[in-house]
Amino acid sequence: MSAYSSKLLEQAVDELSKLPGIGRKTALRLALHLLQGSVDDVEKLSDSLVKMRKDIRHCRICNNISDQEVCMICSNPRRKNSVICVVEDIRDVMAIEKTSQFNGLYHVLGGIISPMEGIGPNDLTFDLLVERLSQNEISEVILALPATIEGDTTSFYIYRKIKDFKVLITTIARGVAIGDELEYADEITLGRSIIKRIPYEKAVNG
Amino acid sequence: MSAYSSKLLEQAVDELSKLPGIGRKTALRLALHLLQGSVDDVEKLSDSLVKMRKDIRHCRICNNISDQEVCMICSNPRRKNSVICVVEDIRDVMAIEKTSQFNGLYHVLGGIISPMEGIGPNDLTFDLLVERLSQNEISEVILALPATIEGDTTSFYIYRKIKDFKVLITTIARGVAIGDELEYADEITLGRSIIKRIPYEKAVNG
Repeated sequence: MSAYSSKLLEQAVDELSKLPGIGRKTALRLALHLLQGSVDDVEKLSDSLVKMRKDIRHCRICNNISDQEVCMICSNPRRKNSVICVVEDIRDVMAIEKTSQFNGLYHVLGGIISPMEGIGPNDLTFDLLVERLSQNEISEVILALPATIEGDTTSFYIYRKIKDFKVLITTIARGVAIGDELEYADEITLGRSIIKRIPYEKAVNG
Repeated sequence: MSAYSSKLLEQAVDELSKLPGIGRKTALRLALHLLQGSVDDVEKLSDSLVKMRKDIRHCRICNNISDQEVCMICSNPRRKNSVICVVEDIRDVMAIEKTSQFNGLYHVLGGIISPMEGIGPNDLTFDLLVERLSQNEISEVILALPATIEGDTTSFYIYRKIKDFKVLITTIARGVAIGDELEYADEITLGRSIIKRIPYEKAVNG
């Protein structure tokens, strides 16, 4: 006999534990929670998941997740459409949007080059980015990719692809986080932030 | 504009973050994971949840979760049906089954008395337990409830309800966990295990 007294429960736990970060114990807790709630609640959850998966689209301009053909950011006339910020995925878009410090458009790669995970240049939306640069008046491309080997590799790959366009290519600042004590910053970040030091007046006046 | 570029995504995140222990960040990670998978995967997950919620039943004898009217444990002729182990919920059944040390039947209360959470005696299956005792030849009732104030209150409530039946009422042993160093055991457990000490020979020979 299996540990579960119900095949239906076991199947639900099997499916839930396929989700990232959800082990079988957590899956069981979630399943029992759903069992205690109403049928309506469970249907709302499952409908929202299926509907999302079936109906969601990717913006044909920037590849961001969208309900329409063109996402809310790309279709917003108040955004500066000559600046493109290149990010790994939609979570980065949300993180940057939360800062309220960026008013341009995005380009969502859908991942970064990672031979370890079998993600090569062809799996990402580099061609779409090159197309945007050749068809539009773009003044700046900001590379906002993770500060990892994969992120740096991807930044360099993009740099080589677009360096012949007449466009300013920038990357987001790296250094000691605002509010951090120096002694708690990691050596590499701290070392780099000394080498890449900037004039005080520039740092203060932005 | 909301932080999400898609209403569909936002709705899925809303629903997922209603689950216990799932915050909005985790919900977003789960939703994006599902977006990357196939439609089929999402449908399998959502079908399993709805099917579980709609079709699962409670064993009419012991209140355990079951696919049939009588659960696999109650309907197993090789189990000793004169011993009933009373537990809080199905997770406890699974935990005890895993030990392979119990061959009787269960009684699943579906909770414990907790005025804080508004759970009173009428919300639990005490009457069903009394009915089982009056209609069957039961020799022993094992109270296997949590070692908390609520658990002890519930045990005492059950004890008073069934003490007039000709049945042995026992409770699971409490004490220092097997493999634990004394210095790491909490004071109350250690103190109680000294007061409730048992003859060495009995401990060794079971």
